[in-house]
Amino acid sequence: MTETEINRRVLLVAYADEIPESANFELSSAPVPVPGDGSFLVRNRYLSVDPAQRGYASAVANYAAPVPLGGVMRGFALGEVVASKNADYAVGEIVVGAFGWQDYAVSDGGDVLFRVAPGIKRLSAALGVLGLSGVTAYFGLLEIGQPRAGETVVVSTAAGSVGSAVGQIAKIQGCRAVGLTGGGAKVDLCTGTFGYDAAIDYKAGNLDNALGAACPDGVDVYFDNTGGAISDTVLGHLNIGGRIVVCGTAATASWDPPPTGPRIERQILVRRARMQGLLIFDYKDRFAEAQVQLAAWLADGRLTGREEILDGIEAAPGAIRRLYDGRNMGKLIIRLQSGPGSG
Amino acid sequence: MTETEINRRVLLVAYADEIPESANFELSSAPVPVPGDGSFLVRNRYLSVDPAQRGYASAVANYAAPVPLGGVMRGFALGEVVASKNADYAVGEIVVGAFGWQDYAVSDGGDVLFRVAPGIKRLSAALGVLGLSGVTAYFGLLEIGQPRAGETVVVSTAAGSVGSAVGQIAKIQGCRAVGLTGGGAKVDLCTGTFGYDAAIDYKAGNLDNALGAACPDGVDVYFDNTGGAISDTVLGHLNIGGRIVVCGTAATASWDPPPTGPRIERQILVRRARMQGLLIFDYKDRFAEAQVQLAAWLADGRLTGREEILDGIEAAPGAIRRLYDGRNMGKLIIRLQSGPGSG
Repeated sequence: MTETEINRRVLLVAYADEIPESANFELSSAPVPVPGDGSFLVRNRYLSVDPAQRGYASAVANYAAPVPLGGVMRGFALGEVVASKNADYAVGEIVVGAFGWQDYAVSDGGDVLFRVAPGIKRLSAALGVLGLSGVTAYFGLLEIGQPRAGETVVVSTAAGSVGSAVGQIAKIQGCRAVGLTGGGAKVDLCTGTFGYDAAIDYKAGNLDNALGAACPDGVDVYFDNTGGAISDTVLGHLNIGGRIVVCGTAATASWDPPPTGPRIERQILVRRARMQGLLIFDYKDRFAEAQVQLAAWLADGRLTGREEILDGIEAAPGAIRRLYDGRNMGKLIIRLQSGPGSG
Repeated sequence: MTETEINRRVLLVAYADEIPESANFELSSAPVPVPGDGSFLVRNRYLSVDPAQRGYASAVANYAAPVPLGGVMRGFALGEVVASKNADYAVGEIVVGAFGWQDYAVSDGGDVLFRVAPGIKRLSAALGVLGLSGVTAYFGLLEIGQPRAGETVVVSTAAGSVGSAVGQIAKIQGCRAVGLTGGGAKVDLCTGTFGYDAAIDYKAGNLDNALGAACPDGVDVYFDNTGGAISDTVLGHLNIGGRIVVCGTAATASWDPPPTGPRIERQILVRRARMQGLLIFDYKDRFAEAQVQLAAWLADGRLTGREEILDGIEAAPGAIRRLYDGRNMGKLIIRLQSGPGSG
């Protein structure tokens, strides 16, 4: 508590009908809170920018209730315990949790997702490939997708934080990995940095033909971060017994009312496909199991993560939009302060 | 080969765009075929009328290739081996298989689905609750739906051959069973004969409210034989972790082009639902396991099946339509001849 005496907070001041913008938020200062018995004070170093925040900033309840207007924007962050009256959390520990978009948060431990293992080389990776993104890819692909060696795994938003981990884990499992992404730079990122066997720019047109060429043996697992027309096209290439992991619906701007599309029940039936939704918090008790494996792959060089880091809490309000406009290249993170391991 | 010297056959003479009608077929006679080495002759006693036949009579390949024009209509039948040059099949054995809509068929055993256990009280049940219908309900509900005691199972076409078995097996598992069906007579059949806790006439309007009232704790398993708007409504009541068994799409008359409906990926995601298609032939190696259990439940009086029997091969061509117009009440079967155990 040496660098700042105040707690800068991003408040939600207006609900967003579609993608939250800067205008939906306001930056405000308050005194640094003081933890009571059983609580501890976290100083956030990195704020996570996530698609789920679109739901938090909507007036309609989704996974979670909307953030109350005037309240601190809900979000994940990585921070350091700087004061503690809780025997389970010692000063100096690095934790990731739902600490909100602010400099400081008081926690009783209930909103902690996991502790960051000491010795992590790049702290921000604990919000990306070693954090929720990596864990989502790990359980979504392995537990729901259940890929077998030699199968073809297609991933939408393939260059993104979750998607890039899915593609790499698919390769580690001996699968053919095919990425769907937007634009040539991301196609290059997929086949270059992330090691996909093929990547398709869905904006280039004729996705159906491109999928047929990239997946000559059909699609066994589709890890779906977009939904919408892209997924309709992939479904047409799904093999009998194929699995669809529904992880996100980035292609649809508003679900009120739900948009229409071709009915899929016949495809599910004829292909004996299995389509299943994933919420990573259902796996919270098993995060450590995934993180140990992800860290080992990272150390081996078989897995890489990429973060796009914006500096300063002032960058947070406009950041959610970046997840949807195709600009961002990696796990989107707001850096609040420098320190050992930052970067 | 005493009663008839000819083989009466139902030939497909015109493809159907939607539901096959009498006009799509022609009755024709031919000599009774003679089995060669390795084959045997089956004399059909009962022909099965199934939704899958709509696909066989369509010009568009589906699960199976279309029946060639002028060919015998593909379909399941129960028959007796009346001549055999195959050591595995003895004269007098009762078998169920894809013998086609005709009096006699030659088989090498490859199109046999199962042998009917001697001593079965009502032979026609081997095409219904002890046959593909019962086995479909058994594996679809137990393997894909995975109901747990105390959960709520909703079934569409609840009074039908598959649906009624699903509802009864759900009750045996300790679940609350709620049936969706068309018309008051079938509602009574569901709650009376088949023991559903509640049944809803979807034609009566306000299915959404009725489902809410019948499923106060939400829906854990939806065994879906219809798809379409009925299923959209059920999806809105699905609990987190709910399972959807996609067994049929009776609500949709034509899939070329696929009709549109509200996109479901968001519902699947938010509810972490699992939706999976079922083709019962994938379980062919395990039919006996199901049939032993179904027969035991039938003997205990915990399970009942109902067949609607039409007499004479002349009734076959117009019978498929009955599956779709809401008239039929039970497994629809064509009786070709009387004999011991017939009825």
